[in-house]
Amino acid sequence: DRVRIAPEYVAAKFGLRNHWYPVRLADEVDENKPLAVTLLGENILLNRIDGRVYALKDRCIHRGVALSRKIECHTKGTITCWYHGFTYRFDDGVLCDIVAVKSSNVIGRRRIKTYPVEEVQGLVFVFVGDDDFEPPPLAHDVPPGFLDADMTVRAQWREVNANWRIGAENGFDSTHIYIHKDSVLVDDAALALALGLQPRGDHAFETQVGSDGPSGVFDNFSPDRVVPIFSGTIEGEEVLRGAVNGKNLLPHSISMWLPCVLKVDPWPAPDLTQFEWYVPIDGERHIYLQTLGRRCRTDSEVAAFDREFHERWVPAALNGFNDDDVWAREATQPFYADDRGWLEEQLYEPDGNIVAWRNFVAKHARGFQQPEHIDPLLRE
Amino acid sequence: DRVRIAPEYVAAKFGLRNHWYPVRLADEVDENKPLAVTLLGENILLNRIDGRVYALKDRCIHRGVALSRKIECHTKGTITCWYHGFTYRFDDGVLCDIVAVKSSNVIGRRRIKTYPVEEVQGLVFVFVGDDDFEPPPLAHDVPPGFLDADMTVRAQWREVNANWRIGAENGFDSTHIYIHKDSVLVDDAALALALGLQPRGDHAFETQVGSDGPSGVFDNFSPDRVVPIFSGTIEGEEVLRGAVNGKNLLPHSISMWLPCVLKVDPWPAPDLTQFEWYVPIDGERHIYLQTLGRRCRTDSEVAAFDREFHERWVPAALNGFNDDDVWAREATQPFYADDRGWLEEQLYEPDGNIVAWRNFVAKHARGFQQPEHIDPLLRE
Amino acid sequence: DRVRIAPEYVAAKFGLRNHWYPVRLADEVDENKPLAVTLLGENILLNRIDGRVYALKDRCIHRGVALSRKIECHTKGTITCWYHGFTYRFDDGVLCDIVAVKSSNVIGRRRIKTYPVEEVQGLVFVFVGDDDFEPPPLAHDVPPGFLDADMTVRAQWREVNANWRIGAENGFDSTHIYIHKDSVLVDDAALALALGLQPRGDHAFETQVGSDGPSGVFDNFSPDRVVPIFSGTIEGEEVLRGAVNGKNLLPHSISMWLPCVLKVDPWPAPDLTQFEWYVPIDGERHIYLQTLGRRCRTDSEVAAFDREFHERWVPAALNGFNDDDVWAREATQPFYADDRGWLEEQLYEPDGNIVAWRNFVAKHARGFQQPEHIDPLLRE
Repeated sequence: DRVRIAPEYVAAKFGLRNHWYPVRLADEVDENKPLAVTLLGENILLNRIDGRVYALKDRCIHRGVALSRKIECHTKGTITCWYHGFTYRFDDGVLCDIVAVKSSNVIGRRRIKTYPVEEVQGLVFVFVGDDDFEPPPLAHDVPPGFLDADMTVRAQWREVNANWRIGAENGFDSTHIYIHKDSVLVDDAALALALGLQPRGDHAFETQVGSDGPSGVFDNFSPDRVVPIFSGTIEGEEVLRGAVNGKNLLPHSISMWLPCVLKVDPWPAPDLTQFEWYVPIDGERHIYLQTLGRRCRTDSEVAAFDREFHERWVPAALNGFNDDDVWAREATQPFYADDRGWLEEQLYEPDGNIVAWRNFVAKHARGFQQPEHIDPLLRE
Repeated sequence: DRVRIAPEYVAAKFGLRNHWYPVRLADEVDENKPLAVTLLGENILLNRIDGRVYALKDRCIHRGVALSRKIECHTKGTITCWYHGFTYRFDDGVLCDIVAVKSSNVIGRRRIKTYPVEEVQGLVFVFVGDDDFEPPPLAHDVPPGFLDADMTVRAQWREVNANWRIGAENGFDSTHIYIHKDSVLVDDAALALALGLQPRGDHAFETQVGSDGPSGVFDNFSPDRVVPIFSGTIEGEEVLRGAVNGKNLLPHSISMWLPCVLKVDPWPAPDLTQFEWYVPIDGERHIYLQTLGRRCRTDSEVAAFDREFHERWVPAALNGFNDDDVWAREATQPFYADDRGWLEEQLYEPDGNIVAWRNFVAKHARGFQQPEHIDPLLRE
Repeated sequence: DRVRIAPEYVAAKFGLRNHWYPVRLADEVDENKPLAVTLLGENILLNRIDGRVYALKDRCIHRGVALSRKIECHTKGTITCWYHGFTYRFDDGVLCDIVAVKSSNVIGRRRIKTYPVEEVQGLVFVFVGDDDFEPPPLAHDVPPGFLDADMTVRAQWREVNANWRIGAENGFDSTHIYIHKDSVLVDDAALALALGLQPRGDHAFETQVGSDGPSGVFDNFSPDRVVPIFSGTIEGEEVLRGAVNGKNLLPHSISMWLPCVLKVDPWPAPDLTQFEWYVPIDGERHIYLQTLGRRCRTDSEVAAFDREFHERWVPAALNGFNDDDVWAREATQPFYADDRGWLEEQLYEPDGNIVAWRNFVAKHARGFQQPEHIDPLLRE
């Protein structure tokens, strides 16, 4: 009766290893100003040097203290531990000197882990993986279209107190639209927002396994697959009506991509696509990084989108509408916190896409974050 | 040398299963206004419909969220989960509809646990037990006299940060009266309050095992059994004097009843009886529900008692006097929190009634709350 | 490659048993005013009676409550438990009476643990050990010189949120002086403070195992053993300069003594010695008890030192300079909190004295605090 769940998915509490994750907006990482972040339970220090962003594990090899506790950068390109002067290069992590101890066998022989970094679409992506794992192109870890030359992207992020899987499942969940029935966005964007979506039969979900591109699971809302329900009934009595009169029946499809990114297309307007990530911080928090993309041909179109993003879509959609998702995830977290929820939940037919996504993760993730990867304080 | 303790009692951290518990005052449960409570580690939603109170587990079967996180009642008699519209009947817990998903195999086939409810003496009692356990009459779980036709009862409650067993043992403890020696109640109620009670010999305690009534343990303070001590001495020197001049030498007996209710008779005045419950919330908290009862024959006697209860007995007795018990329990909790206190404590002769109560619980409780009954977040 | 660490040292989280520890300043323990303290995970009640300080376990044998929760002393020399009147003598811990219960088999037959106390140099020392372990002279647990007749000592203390071993290792660490490079003390005390200390070769450390005195590990800073480094370089470029022009090149030696006391000599001025203790409170906190000693021959010299201590050395040295150590220890604690830091750290040559100290503790401590010694609430 109940859906079986792959043990790999249950074990993926701290995220999928050997993948690319967006962690901050590019303009949050300033030149020569190290910034501490946490990804998949790893404390990382970002820094921009001569325009390029580097990422270094935020822990001195010597006594394990956080370099970020008191930032000391005495030369461009290095950071010095405040405790004993251990100095590391941002580009390769090598312990290149110990300030004030002229010679030691450890100089030049030890290093801090560094992380590959890419900066695209105004976001800083970090590859969290094994040292001997060759990072695939970033394009393999973002949804189709996100990197297109004419795709202009704007973004914001916040922390959410829920495991990243709860974030992803809430986003991909086709019938969770029920929580949005009173959203300000419905009128603002003239949405024909159904109360629910009734699947036709026990439909399978399309998956795309990318040998040369991203890998993900699709859920299409074409009329042969799902019926949008605008009349909500209890024991035959209509108790609620959806926004049937809106002119925009959106989205047409949602899809979920490795490692943890949702594409909602189009959304929240016919000429926009929402791409959003649920990036693991630790076992109980994720970075909810939301972006909207619009295809723009000219600078003035870009400028108009930029203005519209901040003035209209942030308040109405990314906050107004998605704030409901944030509290829903935080309200779901307790049931899954000790992993018994995965066994005690009782899914129903419209959750088929969530099950498909779980199985997809278990089968196609490049790896899973293990206890030894996780900072002692975050292991709980 | 040390008292042995039954393993069942140590394991009863979250309370006794298959018993009735008072959880709120009747007038706190309003019509069509669900109220979330926690009993024995189970989160429960109370609601009054057409005057009758119902109790439903406060957790949607689907993704495990609390229904109370955002109450949605679209018809009288049902509650709808805010997340996906799963709708349950309060009377039988059946999933009768999913708003906006017209058909699903789960509709009508799944249910949330419901709890038997009784409303008596101005209190709402809930039966926390197994689905296949036929609830005994409520009269089997309250002290003798509490339900008598002429017994008028008034009540108040608060949360205490101590395990329910610490609450019960403090209440039944005959020599803990030492902490009340400076209470405002002594003068207010003209009590002859001893500093301590010296048992005569190693007296046994009476128990009553009800096949057709409540079950409990008595401690009688008749002169052939205990000597009240009004002069406190240390190494022969008198250091304290009890309230020997009060005209009311009370109580005459205290008794402790399954599942967790104390009867002090008479108290705090010759024409009053105190009945009080230590209802488990989780492993570290209990509801301290205090009632006073007086036998009244007329409405004007009831009205006079009601006024006296609020104006005199609440401030002087239920707060003034029993506040000392509340802090004593909270001060005792740390020693027992990890269950080592049950092994390391060193009881003495006057604790015989506590030992009798512990053994009585171990032998006569209808069951013990197990880990699988307890909400994940409360299991600690 | 990595230094091995003795399992005894890792297990010493709550401190070394059967040793003397300073816990408060003598003038903090008033006559007939019990004071609750926590040492090595044991809750202890100090009290001064007729000028002499006593120490009693702060837990009634009966129901395990803290006597300090509500202090009741009805006779000089005893304390009475607020709950049931159990009364104990401060000098031998014997349950000498139960107020208001005239007779009980437990009276005179049970006792609370007492702790040997010594009051010297304005400090109250408590011996935390087994009842059948004869306490050695206090002189065996303080550094040489501390008890000398002409040594005048002044002290202050505070709590630090780090394990005591992190405190001790930070104090004894010869290259941690790097964190002090900008301290106000450098100018104030005309220090020639190096940025670092480069050991010559792989020098061994002197130890002193006292059959008739204290036991400890020395680190001497003579020119044939270490080279003070005043020029800090990264990849050949000088990035920092130490305080090379100060006239006082201090200290000449630092040494670490059982159970947890550092001697820095001379410091912070040529005629002063700093003795400081890292006294375990529990597994995550220590009392940082700092003292300065100066040899004084006359009362006016004592008075001058007293004034100088409070007006100059407290703000500039014990606070100004050592505040850096406090935050360094608190920043180091997380890495070692779950004991994995002891295995994952990567020490280097100047840490040789720390390794010597660790091995010394493992070999020469009189015992190690075990779980059964530790108060339930502090065991974590």
